[in-house]
Amino acid sequence: MKDKGTKFERELIHILWQRGFAAMRSAGSGAARYPTPDIIAGNRQIFLAIEVKMRSRLPVYLADQEINELKCFSDAFGAVPLIAVRVSRSGWRFFKISSLYRTDRGYSINKSNFKDGFDLSKLLEWRLNYE
Amino acid sequence: MKDKGTKFERELIHILWQRGFAAMRSAGSGAARYPTPDIIAGNRQIFLAIEVKMRSRLPVYLADQEINELKCFSDAFGAVPLIAVRVSRSGWRFFKISSLYRTDRGYSINKSNFKDGFDLSKLLEWRLNYE
Repeated sequence: MKDKGTKFERELIHILWQRGFAAMRSAGSGAARYPTPDIIAGNRQIFLAIEVKMRSRLPVYLADQEINELKCFSDAFGAVPLIAVRVSRSGWRFFKISSLYRTDRGYSINKSNFKDGFDLSKLLEWRLNYE
Repeated sequence: MKDKGTKFERELIHILWQRGFAAMRSAGSGAARYPTPDIIAGNRQIFLAIEVKMRSRLPVYLADQEINELKCFSDAFGAVPLIAVRVSRSGWRFFKISSLYRTDRGYSINKSNFKDGFDLSKLLEWRLNYE
């Protein structure tokens, strides 16, 4: 499972470099005392802190703590927090925290809000609306 | 040796967070096809791509490839490339690439240019002169 996660993180790193972002995988939270996203990327203008989720199907669940730590890191760093979701046989979709569905125990991405995700080619254009 | 490197990288991560930077360790170059620094840090205003070196004594040698990859990542990301050096019983010192000494095979930090390093508390002040 860990190896599979790593494989998809590497796939995303590759895509980000192809699109002009320098991107780096985190050593992982592990014993770390500080929050850390899975990937950080920048293209001199926009900085992305990315939590990576790959699933065989929807929904994707995200714990409160996971989202809080992503926000904490992003706020301190100066990055846009994003959740990158790869569902089998689909490409990558990116989600802002505001487009996640709130659940009792955290957040989710299900069939109804999956459409609020965007692909990477929309990122720069989306950013203009975001600011 | 690897574990010892990790220990000092974690120490630096801790110092950076204490000084208001969000900081993250890289998963490492390993099988990666893309350049990656040891640590990336940001405080919403300044972004640092850091190569970490800890040694029992000077000089510190850095290969051409290491410096080229640090430059490559930093340029694409939009970060300031820095070499963080921890020599036994001394604190951390930070070096710009321009303050490294050129050797036949790469770069070095020896007794004569070690004084050109600065400590973290000088970073924001130093940055004003850098830009």
